[in-house]
Amino acid sequence: MQKTTIAVDVMGADLGPAAAIEGAVQAYIEYPSAKLTLVGDTDIIKKELASISTKYPKHAPFEFDIVHAPEVIGFDEQPTVAIKQKKNSSIVMGLKHLKAGEAQGFVSAGSTGALLVGVFAYAKRQPGIQRPALCALLPTKKGFTLLLDCGANAEVKPQYLLQFGQLGSTYMKSCMGIQNPRVGLVNVGAEKEKGTPTLQEAYELLESSDLNFIGNIEGRDIPAGEADVVVCDGFVGNVILKLTEGLSKTLMGMIKEELKSSVLSIIGALMAKGAFGKLKKRFDYREVGGAPFLGLESLVVKAHGSSDALAFKNAIRQCINYAQSQ
Amino acid sequence: MQKTTIAVDVMGADLGPAAAIEGAVQAYIEYPSAKLTLVGDTDIIKKELASISTKYPKHAPFEFDIVHAPEVIGFDEQPTVAIKQKKNSSIVMGLKHLKAGEAQGFVSAGSTGALLVGVFAYAKRQPGIQRPALCALLPTKKGFTLLLDCGANAEVKPQYLLQFGQLGSTYMKSCMGIQNPRVGLVNVGAEKEKGTPTLQEAYELLESSDLNFIGNIEGRDIPAGEADVVVCDGFVGNVILKLTEGLSKTLMGMIKEELKSSVLSIIGALMAKGAFGKLKKRFDYREVGGAPFLGLESLVVKAHGSSDALAFKNAIRQCINYAQSQ
Repeated sequence: MQKTTIAVDVMGADLGPAAAIEGAVQAYIEYPSAKLTLVGDTDIIKKELASISTKYPKHAPFEFDIVHAPEVIGFDEQPTVAIKQKKNSSIVMGLKHLKAGEAQGFVSAGSTGALLVGVFAYAKRQPGIQRPALCALLPTKKGFTLLLDCGANAEVKPQYLLQFGQLGSTYMKSCMGIQNPRVGLVNVGAEKEKGTPTLQEAYELLESSDLNFIGNIEGRDIPAGEADVVVCDGFVGNVILKLTEGLSKTLMGMIKEELKSSVLSIIGALMAKGAFGKLKKRFDYREVGGAPFLGLESLVVKAHGSSDALAFKNAIRQCINYAQSQ
Repeated sequence: MQKTTIAVDVMGADLGPAAAIEGAVQAYIEYPSAKLTLVGDTDIIKKELASISTKYPKHAPFEFDIVHAPEVIGFDEQPTVAIKQKKNSSIVMGLKHLKAGEAQGFVSAGSTGALLVGVFAYAKRQPGIQRPALCALLPTKKGFTLLLDCGANAEVKPQYLLQFGQLGSTYMKSCMGIQNPRVGLVNVGAEKEKGTPTLQEAYELLESSDLNFIGNIEGRDIPAGEADVVVCDGFVGNVILKLTEGLSKTLMGMIKEELKSSVLSIIGALMAKGAFGKLKKRFDYREVGGAPFLGLESLVVKAHGSSDALAFKNAIRQCINYAQSQ
C-alpha cells in the first residue's frame, strides 16, 4: 500500500518555520504510516531540519520531501491579490501539489483569508458540493461539536446549509466515530418559524433530508453538546468560534487569578491542579489540531496562526486520519 | 422630590408570581428612594404579599400600588397575536402604565418576544432613535460589556448600528459610570473592509461619529473586555448572549466535575471554594439584573425567564439607577 502523503506549509505560521517543521518532525516520528512533504523555502527548511535533528538525534536524518516555495503570504495581505500574484507561495504551491494528487492532505497555519481564496481557486471540490466550508471542532460538555461554516461563506443559501449538514455529518462519522451525528441549525429559538427566510428554508431542507436533524439550536446548546454538527453561515460561525476560544481562555485565566487571591485557595488550587490540567487540555486548540475545510476532494486543515509544534503535529494527524478513513 | 416609580410585571416568570413579588419586597426594603407598582392579578398579588410578609415581619405591611392585570402571556404564544389580543396582560398593562408616565421603569420576566412586540407597540421611543435595542450586560475579564442588539432587530441597517453605539455609550456612562465607553463593532476581522456592506458602512458611520469607536472587534475580544459597548445585529447578538451564558455554565460545571474526580482535588476544591464563589457570582445573570431595552423614553428591563427574587431585585435596582441618572 502506498503511504498517505500530507503536505505541510511551513512558512505561514506566527511562530515562524521552526514550530511547523518541529511539528512535522514529531508527526514523522509518531505516525510512520504517513509520508510528509514540507512546502516552503528549501534553504530555510534544510537549516531548520539540521537544527531540530540535534533535538531528536535517534530519528535523524528525517525523510521529508520538500516542495520549494520561497514566497510567503502575510496576514495583512489582501487575499485575492496575494493568491493571484504569489504563485510561488507555500499556500499556492501546497494546494497545487494537492490538486495534482501528489498529496492527500494539506496543513497550513497561514492567512485564513488567503487559504480560503486559494482553496476556492485551486482545490478540487467534491462532486455536487456548491461551497466548501471551513469547520472547527469545539469542545463541549459531552465531547466535541463540529461547527461549520466558520468563515468561508459569510452569506449562505439554504442549500449550502443543507450541504454543510451533510459534510459535517460525514466528517463526524468517519473521523470521530460518531454513528448517527445529531445536526443542529443555529437560530434564535427552537421554533421552526424562527429566524430569517434563509434559515426557515434551510430548516425545511434539513428536516426532509436523511440527516439526523434535531432542529434549531441556540447559542447555549452548543457548549452543552446538544448537537454533533452545528450548521450556520460563516459570519455567525466565526463569531461562535472566536467567542468560544476567547471565553474559555478568559474564564480559565479568571479562575487562576481568583485562586491566587488567598493562601488557602493557592493551596487548594495546587491540590486540584490535576483536575484543571485535564480541563485545560480539553479546551486547548492545540490538542484538537486545526480547522478542516470540508467539501473538497482532499482534506485541507487550517492550523491556528499561533500554532506550535504540538498543534502542527495534531493537525497533521487529523489529515492522516481523514485520508486513511476515506 | 417625587419618588421614582418602577412597575414590576409579577406574572410572566418561570418561577411564578412568588419570586417576582419577593424580589419586589426585597427592593422595597433596600431601595426606599423608589416606589414600586406591581402589575398582575390583584388576588394573587395580595395572597403572595400576605404570605411573604411573614418572612419579612419587620417591614410588613408593604406599600405597593397594584395595577390589576389578570391575563398572562405564555412563552409559547405567538407574540404579535398575544399582544394584540391580551390587552389585560401584565406586559401590555405595564407598558401602558409606563407610556402614561405613571412609572419611569418597567421590569418583566415574561416572554421576550411578547415584550419586544409590546415595546414596539406601546413604548415611546427616544426622539431620533429608529429602532430600540435589547441589550445584555456580559461579564468580562475587566468588568462588564453592554451587548446590543440581542434580539430586537434580526436584520439591521448601518444607521441602526450607529444608534446602538450611541444608546449603549450613554447607558454605560450613566448607569455604569464609565467615562468614555469604548464602542466596538462585531466583525470577522479587525480590518475596515471586513464583513458585509452593511457592516462596512456602519464602520464608516461609527468612525466619523463622536463616539469612542475602537473599530471592529472579534468574538474573542468580547470576554477579554476590549470594548465597553459591543454593537451587532440582533441575530448575532442573541447567539453571543446565549453562547456566553451557556459556555460559562458548562465550563463551571465541568470544573466542578473534574474537581470531584479525585480525593485530593475535592479537598483542594473545598479550600478554593471562596475563589470559585466569587467567580461564579460574576457570571451569575441574577447579579447583573436584566437585559435593558434602550432607545425608549423610559427603561424597560427584561429579567431572565428563570429569575428568582434576587434577580428581580437587581433588575428593579437597574431601573431605579437608570431613571435616577437621567
